[in-house]
Amino acid sequence: MSFELPKLAFLLPRNAEYVGQWHTVPIGLSRQFQAQAESRLFLIDAALLAGRLPRRGRFGHKGTYGHALLLLGSRGKIGAAVLATQACLRSGVGLLTVRTPAVGYDILQTSAPEAMALTDPAADFLSELPELTPYSAIGMGPGIDKADSTKVVLEQLLRTAQVPLVLDADALNLLGANPDLLALLPPDSILTPHPKEFERLSGSARDDYHRLELLREFCHKHRCYTVLKGAHTCLGTPTGELYFNTTGNPGMATGGSGDVLTGLLTALRAQHLSALDAALLGIYAHGRAGDLAARHTGEVGLIAGDLTRFIGPTLQELTTPDAF
Amino acid sequence: MSFELPKLAFLLPRNAEYVGQWHTVPIGLSRQFQAQAESRLFLIDAALLAGRLPRRGRFGHKGTYGHALLLLGSRGKIGAAVLATQACLRSGVGLLTVRTPAVGYDILQTSAPEAMALTDPAADFLSELPELTPYSAIGMGPGIDKADSTKVVLEQLLRTAQVPLVLDADALNLLGANPDLLALLPPDSILTPHPKEFERLSGSARDDYHRLELLREFCHKHRCYTVLKGAHTCLGTPTGELYFNTTGNPGMATGGSGDVLTGLLTALRAQHLSALDAALLGIYAHGRAGDLAARHTGEVGLIAGDLTRFIGPTLQELTTPDAF
Amino acid sequence: MSFELPKLAFLLPRNAEYVGQWHTVPIGLSRQFQAQAESRLFLIDAALLAGRLPRRGRFGHKGTYGHALLLLGSRGKIGAAVLATQACLRSGVGLLTVRTPAVGYDILQTSAPEAMALTDPAADFLSELPELTPYSAIGMGPGIDKADSTKVVLEQLLRTAQVPLVLDADALNLLGANPDLLALLPPDSILTPHPKEFERLSGSARDDYHRLELLREFCHKHRCYTVLKGAHTCLGTPTGELYFNTTGNPGMATGGSGDVLTGLLTALRAQHLSALDAALLGIYAHGRAGDLAARHTGEVGLIAGDLTRFIGPTLQELTTPDAF
Amino acid sequence: MSFELPKLAFLLPRNAEYVGQWHTVPIGLSRQFQAQAESRLFLIDAALLAGRLPRRGRFGHKGTYGHALLLLGSRGKIGAAVLATQACLRSGVGLLTVRTPAVGYDILQTSAPEAMALTDPAADFLSELPELTPYSAIGMGPGIDKADSTKVVLEQLLRTAQVPLVLDADALNLLGANPDLLALLPPDSILTPHPKEFERLSGSARDDYHRLELLREFCHKHRCYTVLKGAHTCLGTPTGELYFNTTGNPGMATGGSGDVLTGLLTALRAQHLSALDAALLGIYAHGRAGDLAARHTGEVGLIAGDLTRFIGPTLQELTTPDAF
Repeated sequence: MSFELPKLAFLLPRNAEYVGQWHTVPIGLSRQFQAQAESRLFLIDAALLAGRLPRRGRFGHKGTYGHALLLLGSRGKIGAAVLATQACLRSGVGLLTVRTPAVGYDILQTSAPEAMALTDPAADFLSELPELTPYSAIGMGPGIDKADSTKVVLEQLLRTAQVPLVLDADALNLLGANPDLLALLPPDSILTPHPKEFERLSGSARDDYHRLELLREFCHKHRCYTVLKGAHTCLGTPTGELYFNTTGNPGMATGGSGDVLTGLLTALRAQHLSALDAALLGIYAHGRAGDLAARHTGEVGLIAGDLTRFIGPTLQELTTPDAF
Repeated sequence: MSFELPKLAFLLPRNAEYVGQWHTVPIGLSRQFQAQAESRLFLIDAALLAGRLPRRGRFGHKGTYGHALLLLGSRGKIGAAVLATQACLRSGVGLLTVRTPAVGYDILQTSAPEAMALTDPAADFLSELPELTPYSAIGMGPGIDKADSTKVVLEQLLRTAQVPLVLDADALNLLGANPDLLALLPPDSILTPHPKEFERLSGSARDDYHRLELLREFCHKHRCYTVLKGAHTCLGTPTGELYFNTTGNPGMATGGSGDVLTGLLTALRAQHLSALDAALLGIYAHGRAGDLAARHTGEVGLIAGDLTRFIGPTLQELTTPDAF
Repeated sequence: MSFELPKLAFLLPRNAEYVGQWHTVPIGLSRQFQAQAESRLFLIDAALLAGRLPRRGRFGHKGTYGHALLLLGSRGKIGAAVLATQACLRSGVGLLTVRTPAVGYDILQTSAPEAMALTDPAADFLSELPELTPYSAIGMGPGIDKADSTKVVLEQLLRTAQVPLVLDADALNLLGANPDLLALLPPDSILTPHPKEFERLSGSARDDYHRLELLREFCHKHRCYTVLKGAHTCLGTPTGELYFNTTGNPGMATGGSGDVLTGLLTALRAQHLSALDAALLGIYAHGRAGDLAARHTGEVGLIAGDLTRFIGPTLQELTTPDAF
Repeated sequence: MSFELPKLAFLLPRNAEYVGQWHTVPIGLSRQFQAQAESRLFLIDAALLAGRLPRRGRFGHKGTYGHALLLLGSRGKIGAAVLATQACLRSGVGLLTVRTPAVGYDILQTSAPEAMALTDPAADFLSELPELTPYSAIGMGPGIDKADSTKVVLEQLLRTAQVPLVLDADALNLLGANPDLLALLPPDSILTPHPKEFERLSGSARDDYHRLELLREFCHKHRCYTVLKGAHTCLGTPTGELYFNTTGNPGMATGGSGDVLTGLLTALRAQHLSALDAALLGIYAHGRAGDLAARHTGEVGLIAGDLTRFIGPTLQELTTPDAF
């Protein structure tokens, strides 16, 4: 039990067996007081997100909501591409083009007819970066491989992209294995590692607290936003704040869950949200969609594809009703 | 706030930031009076549509409801073909044959088993017009490309078609780039451009009002019905009337939304509705399906495939109950 | 308005415009009296079907419910194969094997994983009859073509099949074009023509009454059950009875609706129901599924694939509750 | 009618026509008394399962819930692979890799994007065992064939697997035809034969009682758990207990039902449940999912794919609520 807010210790995996189920007890502190309190630790809850997702204007058209590009998939992991694609479509993007190796063509067009498929000339792995002019944000990672040709695509992307990036999965592992690539990372990129992927980027953490220190340092050094995925997903920012998520459940610990998050974040970035707003909204909505899905499937029965069905209602809840 | 009916100015994008949310206030004008008032501007609402969609007769069979042909798709945009196909099926057509390049075969037959697939001999683009005898209406555009071979297909279509046409997307862009083709347009065709596509056909508009003038001129000159897509989609007719739609929401500003409209309109034309009735019903039903879908998905989460699920209930609402 | 039962004239298409909506008025005739009245005209309603569909026994296994074979599809019409397959699966068959040309392989296995696919060596048309030993009933027709090779398959089927047959679509057109094949028809086969297909088999009808005479003669001569599809689908039997259906709606006048019926009938025959019981139950359940579907989609929006969702609940209603 | 518990005789197929519908009548025996009574016959009901499925811990991640490998499918039976895959995903596994012949690649990735596909180099049959290091449990059987190359894969699997195995369908038939393979069976494997498959393993049974004796002997000799599928599926254990299931219905007597069970059991084993707990939970949940599905589809209309939708809610019911 804790006054007003949880202690940081409650949110860390290593304390799981000592903490159990916790509750906060209001003691009458005003929200305003809390907001003024000097802290670099925040909870991502509905109050924090108020006003960050504007309502769509009456006269918006496809172009208003951006054109995302997703670089996804390799032989055997086209499913990850499908999940990221469907999640991106469900997150309000105006247009979506998906780049997969040729092996993914029929699968993508059957599973996500709303997306355009710009197939790579190589059959099994990404091998060429397409022309980037049309796009307002680019996501790369779900289902790709660490093939040499894919590393080249990533390097070209980092060198030439003029729009926001979201990087996940083997795009992160390629960065971890090639620190020279990491140096090319454009500012305000969003990275979404799980703890092992993060340690390949940052070096080993001695414990959960040290991992948070490493997260702060990494975000500062690379001027990026890093989503450290876990039970209480933690967003690190270039300026040193840490934001801990309050939504989600252990049913989401299942293959493809992260691919959905990548699609979601890329869509929000493509709609011209700031990296901070996109990351906060995306992390929260992803967990909340999982909570809504689990009401239907149970935690055990939850699969990643279920999440995409509930992204829409979740983003609707978060939309500021009175904005134009 | 406006008496009885909105002002035209409320419906135009350039006034968006000054107008905000508007309401009409009844002041006791009789519907009959309004009907007699001389105006060439109309709202597309349920009252206007009463009686335009007859109920199906008890003894109707597949042949009664027409056989539509859709010319759709190119490599990477077979999804547009899927969406137009599914929408056409949901709009009451008796039979549907879909022509796509060969790359679309498996995708179409998996996604829309109710449609027959008459695959083009070319792999990636439309290259040959099929024999047109069986069909009662033909739609062309969603997902096609501006390839030379496709231009030839369009030209052959315009020269030989004896049944109603619906043209969209790159079929319109090909018309815009080849004014000689535009001269071949059969009377009573329906065109469905968004504003940029329209300006490729009509020349640049100075402002929203000028665009409406251009719309009137274009429809008159080419004896066609033009659906200028937008927040208040506007139908222009050969005789100079403009009809503004009252359904729809900004969640529909998403890739594939227009493909759905093309399928819907082609189905209505195949069922022997007049161009005017088909256009009015199709525009309204498309927006209304979007409004019903958004109740489930939210506006942000809406994708084009959602629209097809709600076309049926919408057309049911519009069906005249007492017709034979 | 009619006493107790409709007049035959109410059920015939040519009287449609004179009859309109009709109702029956009970005048106290006992059901028993009606049953004893000498008539060869019957209505297919719930009362007629009571007791014809036994409840599944507790210890039944896959083998108890038969193994159906469906011969389906050709290039461009694999969708018809999908619809017949899904309907057959939903109608209680223990096992289902589907024979399509090779072009249908991926489509079928993606759309109906519960069915086994025994692909024909030819790419586009059926060309070889598989070994028939495992099967308890066989359906042929939806989506096939009139190719010479397919005619040979049909002929081999008629010559060698030892189990009940259901024939539809181009299987019927092949019979109509090759009267020598018709002579091979095994007794108790079920044929499911629409009026045009029927006239290719029976010769032209002068009017609706004459068509019913031709139906009686045809069923008698070929010792078969013929389902003459229409608003009031009429089943003719070898012994001269005519059964008129009371379920269904004009939304079912859409491509693929008949394919669903073929799957349904083949499944019931595979489960060892008599030709009469299978035909009566299948006709009624098909129409009833359409009525249930139309409550969700509206009549205009109904597509054939919707029917399969409601076959199960319909057959459940018809199951005799107290049988073992 | 029986006091407290059914007699064994009620549960055997050969008595079906004499037993009919039975009920138990409580006579006040305490549950504790029953638990202490010396018996090697048990009913699988909710009480027996209490505490066997722990709730997911807050900080679990994908790795916590295991990585399953499924060896599935052959040309024409990729549908069986799809069903086992979808069921495995719905049963809480952290990650799933599926090995099918190459013919199954597109089908699997379209139907189950959450699974990774590790395609066999052979087109039509399994021919090579992949490297087994990543996996925490392995299932083999649904949709495979008795091809020589597949027999070799099975033999390699039995010789090298260090993790729990689940074997079904033609994997069992290969064991039955090759008793030398049976001798390689790792202890605590789960086998899921139907009665005919079982007799190929154990020799012929004279009657239902003898079959249960053979089941006890077989499980003892091979130190395995054998799920003898039927109306009252019976689990035999290495130590001689027999557990009879109380869920399920005859609508589940349909192709693919067993494939779903294999996926379910493999997922539970991959999550580090004991063979006994996995078998008991899997058998019960499979039948219960069928009971829930039949409420929507009716027994006749039930198909195997329906079961997967209800596995999640069923496992949720069985989850121990107060575990960490």
